[in-house]
Amino acid sequence: MPAGEYDLVIRGAHVADAGGAGDGDLAIRDGRVAAVGRGLGPGREEIDARGKLVLPGGVDTHCHIEQLSGAGVMNADTFETATRSALYGGTTTTVSFAAQHPGMRIADVVADYAELARRGAMCDHAFHMIVADTSGDNLDDVARLIEEGHRSIKVFTTYDKVRLDDAAILQVLRVARAHGALVCFHAENDAIIRDATARLLAEGRTAPRDHAASHPRMAEIEALERICRFAEYTGQPVMLFHVSTREGVEIVRAARARGAPVWAETCTHYLFQTVDTLDRPDGAAFMCSPPQREAADVEALWHALDQRDLQLVTSDHAPYRMDESGKFLHGRDAPFNKIANGMPGLELRLPVLFDAMVSRGRLGLAAFVELTSAAPARLFGLTGKGALRPGMDADVVLWDPEREVTYAADDLHDNVGYNPFAGHTVKGWPETVLLRGRVAVDGGTLHVEPGQGRRVPMEKSPAMAAEKP
Amino acid sequence: MPAGEYDLVIRGAHVADAGGAGDGDLAIRDGRVAAVGRGLGPGREEIDARGKLVLPGGVDTHCHIEQLSGAGVMNADTFETATRSALYGGTTTTVSFAAQHPGMRIADVVADYAELARRGAMCDHAFHMIVADTSGDNLDDVARLIEEGHRSIKVFTTYDKVRLDDAAILQVLRVARAHGALVCFHAENDAIIRDATARLLAEGRTAPRDHAASHPRMAEIEALERICRFAEYTGQPVMLFHVSTREGVEIVRAARARGAPVWAETCTHYLFQTVDTLDRPDGAAFMCSPPQREAADVEALWHALDQRDLQLVTSDHAPYRMDESGKFLHGRDAPFNKIANGMPGLELRLPVLFDAMVSRGRLGLAAFVELTSAAPARLFGLTGKGALRPGMDADVVLWDPEREVTYAADDLHDNVGYNPFAGHTVKGWPETVLLRGRVAVDGGTLHVEPGQGRRVPMEKSPAMAAEKP
Amino acid sequence: MPAGEYDLVIRGAHVADAGGAGDGDLAIRDGRVAAVGRGLGPGREEIDARGKLVLPGGVDTHCHIEQLSGAGVMNADTFETATRSALYGGTTTTVSFAAQHPGMRIADVVADYAELARRGAMCDHAFHMIVADTSGDNLDDVARLIEEGHRSIKVFTTYDKVRLDDAAILQVLRVARAHGALVCFHAENDAIIRDATARLLAEGRTAPRDHAASHPRMAEIEALERICRFAEYTGQPVMLFHVSTREGVEIVRAARARGAPVWAETCTHYLFQTVDTLDRPDGAAFMCSPPQREAADVEALWHALDQRDLQLVTSDHAPYRMDESGKFLHGRDAPFNKIANGMPGLELRLPVLFDAMVSRGRLGLAAFVELTSAAPARLFGLTGKGALRPGMDADVVLWDPEREVTYAADDLHDNVGYNPFAGHTVKGWPETVLLRGRVAVDGGTLHVEPGQGRRVPMEKSPAMAAEKP
Amino acid sequence: MPAGEYDLVIRGAHVADAGGAGDGDLAIRDGRVAAVGRGLGPGREEIDARGKLVLPGGVDTHCHIEQLSGAGVMNADTFETATRSALYGGTTTTVSFAAQHPGMRIADVVADYAELARRGAMCDHAFHMIVADTSGDNLDDVARLIEEGHRSIKVFTTYDKVRLDDAAILQVLRVARAHGALVCFHAENDAIIRDATARLLAEGRTAPRDHAASHPRMAEIEALERICRFAEYTGQPVMLFHVSTREGVEIVRAARARGAPVWAETCTHYLFQTVDTLDRPDGAAFMCSPPQREAADVEALWHALDQRDLQLVTSDHAPYRMDESGKFLHGRDAPFNKIANGMPGLELRLPVLFDAMVSRGRLGLAAFVELTSAAPARLFGLTGKGALRPGMDADVVLWDPEREVTYAADDLHDNVGYNPFAGHTVKGWPETVLLRGRVAVDGGTLHVEPGQGRRVPMEKSPAMAAEKP
Repeated sequence: MPAGEYDLVIRGAHVADAGGAGDGDLAIRDGRVAAVGRGLGPGREEIDARGKLVLPGGVDTHCHIEQLSGAGVMNADTFETATRSALYGGTTTTVSFAAQHPGMRIADVVADYAELARRGAMCDHAFHMIVADTSGDNLDDVARLIEEGHRSIKVFTTYDKVRLDDAAILQVLRVARAHGALVCFHAENDAIIRDATARLLAEGRTAPRDHAASHPRMAEIEALERICRFAEYTGQPVMLFHVSTREGVEIVRAARARGAPVWAETCTHYLFQTVDTLDRPDGAAFMCSPPQREAADVEALWHALDQRDLQLVTSDHAPYRMDESGKFLHGRDAPFNKIANGMPGLELRLPVLFDAMVSRGRLGLAAFVELTSAAPARLFGLTGKGALRPGMDADVVLWDPEREVTYAADDLHDNVGYNPFAGHTVKGWPETVLLRGRVAVDGGTLHVEPGQGRRVPMEKSPAMAAEKP
Repeated sequence: MPAGEYDLVIRGAHVADAGGAGDGDLAIRDGRVAAVGRGLGPGREEIDARGKLVLPGGVDTHCHIEQLSGAGVMNADTFETATRSALYGGTTTTVSFAAQHPGMRIADVVADYAELARRGAMCDHAFHMIVADTSGDNLDDVARLIEEGHRSIKVFTTYDKVRLDDAAILQVLRVARAHGALVCFHAENDAIIRDATARLLAEGRTAPRDHAASHPRMAEIEALERICRFAEYTGQPVMLFHVSTREGVEIVRAARARGAPVWAETCTHYLFQTVDTLDRPDGAAFMCSPPQREAADVEALWHALDQRDLQLVTSDHAPYRMDESGKFLHGRDAPFNKIANGMPGLELRLPVLFDAMVSRGRLGLAAFVELTSAAPARLFGLTGKGALRPGMDADVVLWDPEREVTYAADDLHDNVGYNPFAGHTVKGWPETVLLRGRVAVDGGTLHVEPGQGRRVPMEKSPAMAAEKP
Repeated sequence: MPAGEYDLVIRGAHVADAGGAGDGDLAIRDGRVAAVGRGLGPGREEIDARGKLVLPGGVDTHCHIEQLSGAGVMNADTFETATRSALYGGTTTTVSFAAQHPGMRIADVVADYAELARRGAMCDHAFHMIVADTSGDNLDDVARLIEEGHRSIKVFTTYDKVRLDDAAILQVLRVARAHGALVCFHAENDAIIRDATARLLAEGRTAPRDHAASHPRMAEIEALERICRFAEYTGQPVMLFHVSTREGVEIVRAARARGAPVWAETCTHYLFQTVDTLDRPDGAAFMCSPPQREAADVEALWHALDQRDLQLVTSDHAPYRMDESGKFLHGRDAPFNKIANGMPGLELRLPVLFDAMVSRGRLGLAAFVELTSAAPARLFGLTGKGALRPGMDADVVLWDPEREVTYAADDLHDNVGYNPFAGHTVKGWPETVLLRGRVAVDGGTLHVEPGQGRRVPMEKSPAMAAEKP
Repeated sequence: MPAGEYDLVIRGAHVADAGGAGDGDLAIRDGRVAAVGRGLGPGREEIDARGKLVLPGGVDTHCHIEQLSGAGVMNADTFETATRSALYGGTTTTVSFAAQHPGMRIADVVADYAELARRGAMCDHAFHMIVADTSGDNLDDVARLIEEGHRSIKVFTTYDKVRLDDAAILQVLRVARAHGALVCFHAENDAIIRDATARLLAEGRTAPRDHAASHPRMAEIEALERICRFAEYTGQPVMLFHVSTREGVEIVRAARARGAPVWAETCTHYLFQTVDTLDRPDGAAFMCSPPQREAADVEALWHALDQRDLQLVTSDHAPYRMDESGKFLHGRDAPFNKIANGMPGLELRLPVLFDAMVSRGRLGLAAFVELTSAAPARLFGLTGKGALRPGMDADVVLWDPEREVTYAADDLHDNVGYNPFAGHTVKGWPETVLLRGRVAVDGGTLHVEPGQGRRVPMEKSPAMAAEKP
């Protein structure tokens, strides 16, 4: 083997992925992992990684970027700012949304978002197609787009304009089944939310805290049960987004036990925040849907991750500034139902979870990689991502397991202007981030340009084909 | 990198373990995996593995070797014949039993079995300590033996002489908890078995088929529930052996869902045989405890493996010849309860499961490695086993995924004299087997001597320490 | 006590209701039970009831009478023919439907049906208000009608024209909660039925048997789960009609166990017929929704009745003739979805169930009375009905427990023209039926005129008020 | 009807039992209910019961009377004092224990207790046979005694001397199955209790509160699961005594749902007291086994009664004085495991439950009678008891539903010397109590002599015969 065969060798690290770990070197060639071993030959460049963990880059399959919400509020983040933030946080692949609104053609929507990402994205990326209009040729187009590698669809059971009724949901599931895609769900019962909201507003309860009451846990429970039954009925695999309740965990577990093709995620904030967070003076900053729940739910979610009853942790990055452009489009005194929902999280997800899972030992290193990188890559067919094996994309993060960082109020690299984990201290930090073998972030400095991210076509995953989970 | 740096390079394979797979080479140095990559430097020896799968060697954590059963029947296999058979089947690590009978000192028992293995074993190995006598210093000795790396205990809830009552079981769990070990269980309710047996014999029902009726599914159900409750009560992790019923699966799932530190296995034959097998003229050959069940149970076990509600598949290799030395110690006309229980399986487990899981696509390659190698190694703290990472033991199997073999009546390399899967065709075959970097079996030829296997000390696994599974 | 104090004394019977039984006499005065005892004083009339059982008259809370279905087919039975049939079968109180269609005012609908019943009914009766249009003043009218004693509402989750969506359902539940009514549900998921129907028709499957496939069990399962969640969310008691599946039983049981205010019924035919019935040449005669299921479901329903996980057995009498006026409105070659659903059952329910529950001993006498008379009366607030206590209406049936009858093809006293239990033999026969102390049927002869039945106002039952079942 | 036909007429009451209620008179002749009606003929004696409720006398199927405990402590109550107390509390039938100790012949034991009761009992009574020794002829004797009307057996799974192991339990279940009896269980896992007790004592924790920790909920959970499985395995009906935990409720519910012949009770104190009661200075007064639990358990028990998942409420009257003859046989400083377990409750059960169930409306009048009188009579085959039907024994209680009483420290009519509900106020009071038509207690005065109570032979109840509950 001639000297210089490798482009880059990362030396002396603890190299780990979801399948295990070992001490040694990681060699990269042509943007891919070339070898993992001890005493590997020289690289044209080398990085001394002694004392560091070398892990695959994070894969965040639930984030909103440069998207116009159903309620008409624009995300604070463009692809440029969102993916920059992702890289700073150790995430090298995002899956955001190509969001159809009624009247739009889904093919145009996907093309438009893909073009935005092509120009702006700094990390690799793919899309979930939000299907909000099944009329006309749209479902035919969806079928074609699936075959072109857009193998994930997102459906809302709530939110005006974008929600689908049961009949349309079954149509979408049938199309996905025929062509091979996952169907992701925001599953909350719309009628319950409207009933609860109307009652609260009638009582003059309009504060951020009341937002939680307007999304009763029963709204999640009912919709999760229903979607699990639809998956079971059609045999079509579904991914249940942002499970927030202990009952939700039980529903998913029971569905999987009886053979329904169901997978599910939770998000960072549900693992750390309770509904009490909304009582803070800046409660609007934490408003999201479904809302944070009780301490017992937080425990149930952690146990479900440990058991893999939930398979993913994503950020649900939903960036809105705390001003009239975002959260307060309808004014600072607007009632809860006029305040934009969502929190930034792309940059926070991995450090916050590494600290809890690895540094504090809650789930361990293999689980951390599995839940935040390997499983999302595998389930969504993001080939080349999520593991450090020869031939995989060299999306690599060097973690300093000893470095402690306390978040400040506005220290993230997105465009949102606040950090919902301000004051939170994490141990373990993504010092250096490589995208396909090139240093993207190192020691706090960015080394990548907009447009360097590539779209990752989704291949048909076993999950998409499976009759059973 | 100087020529000759690697002792052996396996080139051009599809290298896989439970964490993923990739095409490339596997390099070995000093008996360990040195590197996995593409275009790795030369080895002093090289193997062309194009078209082959390269997987970690199997780890079989449930097999009976050179053991005197509680009923006084000696295994047909010595360490030499059993481990030879294991290697031919792609298994490179066995965990068999150091079986105390009442009146024996556990320390002596462990020393004796260890010496037998030291002399005879051809593959690496460890022991479960069967604790059948908690009197005297035995539990103090158990504590010491745990600290010496015998971090697994086996307890029977049934079988005369060896079974422990609830009070003794709790004592054992307390010792294991204090020192860090897994406690494995043969969990069947003894009183139910005796009740059923007495009723059958009183009715003159003595055939092999009646053996199944003498071990009612309720015997398993009750005992699994009880042991799960003991695990939950003490916080002590347990491993439930040979789950055979769908209710058993549900009990394990429910226990894990509520946080009980419970893991469980099933065995090869429960995945392929039903109780009808016992109706064959040579039904005695298939008698085992618990017995084979119904088709619906087989389905439930497969689904449980898919969901990881069961974490392991072992062989429960229990070798008795079909003659007066074994099955028929009490004569060929003996009633079912005088016929030795058990089947050979060490050599069959991996090919039979590879065919079903990989070639037929039931669970896939990663699941195959996880269930038969990675998980047993990880849960029992068998460091260095179960994965192909730099630094791990180079226990490697080269599988020919295309080769089809139909089993004959007596083609195994153990000393049992019959093959319970005779006539069964498998696709996928372990052509070449390496033990710590040395070829042990290749193309049907054995290249290893008795005594070359080493004892693997068990390290404290996360499972052993865990409050929760 | 002066002679003639009682109007009628039934002497020497075995008098029983859901609370127990005893040998003695039943005395009636002014249409009500005056006394139950031994050696009661004389009546102006006396009936020798030695060897007979004296039970309260049946209460059938689910029957369609003189109703125009959503699909535009008129029932074969008027109040006159239906209630005549009821009396012949031992049922003295019916609760049928006042069926709103969209565009009708609910107040008018109730008035119209009440007038039809006032003129035609031969037995006592009440109504469930089918709410199919919540627009305009309708919900205000519903509130008023509830207070006037129409304390039961029926909602469909399927069937064009009459089905309500989730939002309307919650509105109805809120109105019922505020005023005190039960809300009954035909709970099947409409989208699933439409999906299944479209697929079957596309495959050319149009036979009666295919009707069952067009109403997948999952349609029932999903809708039952959803309605249970709505009951739990609102605290509003619901009655789930015609549970037909074992999963449905489990859903009801689980809902009740967690405190949801849920009650449920099944119907006669689900306890005796399986889906195979639809394969008969006259399969259309047996088509109903939900359809008959499998033998395992039948067993589950019986066990659920035994455990009171289901609380009622009703007839779901839905009378359509086997001609162009009824089943075949769209022609004899019409596909399954154009054939009217339903079977006659008012006259059959009690004899068929008495035979199975009492004569064959499946559930016993107290359970028979509880499930067919006492519980429906109690849960729907039908004061004075369902028991033989002093002060209760003297709705009395004298059963000959020894008489065996085999049903003929057309021996019922309704206007439907066929008997779905033709050929079925029952032991136990309602010889004499009294309505409020007057003989209505005796030895096969009718002694009552149209219009003699009275409307029974529903009082607020504990069930209607309860937070918990 | 001639004057004087009735011995006694109770006029103008609200007469109720578990099957319903009505206003009217109750007439008694020859110690039995003769008639229930309005305007009944005259009695030789008459009672004006206007404003009163007339209910069947209570049946308390779990009380310890004149019994030597396994630990060697004698009950404070003789049959005379215990049954006197029962009558004052409205209970007219007791089922106490004929308690075998190892070495005693069960036939002698039953004869001895029967004789004690024959001489001393003031109310009607029957026995559960405690089987603690299955050796010799004992099981044959048990078979004979069952046929003689002793159709209830009690088995302990814990307590030295009296507990049976699994094998003996199965033997007892087989005998009961063959001859028709219920088998009642004190179900707590003995090994868990011993493990917990030893650990507590080793830590110097000896207070009454520690008694609760020495009987972990897991002890109950495990044993209930096991006995349910034994019932399911043998098909033999069992009655689970004193369920105290929410998990216990779930176990019973699940067992019944799958068809196991299981019934269960809870006791008065578990419905009103939590473990905190043991922290009182006189905590020893409240010690019982199983111990009181948490508030969530209390709620679960109430809901289970409402759903009939538990079928009975008994007193578990276990009378020990707070002195060296009883609680403190081993001294006032004795650790918890040397203090006698139990509380008086025969006299308290009905008033305390009437207040909660009826006056406060928690379950209603029919449920009160069902749970405390009708169901125990029915399930244990106590013919003639538990209802007010013609021909039943005239065991009648006249309740003043308006009278309020606050219990004092020592106001009970037993021989125990303290009232565990001292300070508790009840609304509703058993003013007058009739035993077989004769006034036994009226306005606080006793009108009955020792020996006037009769033994009630148990008939084979449907429960005893049932394969299914």
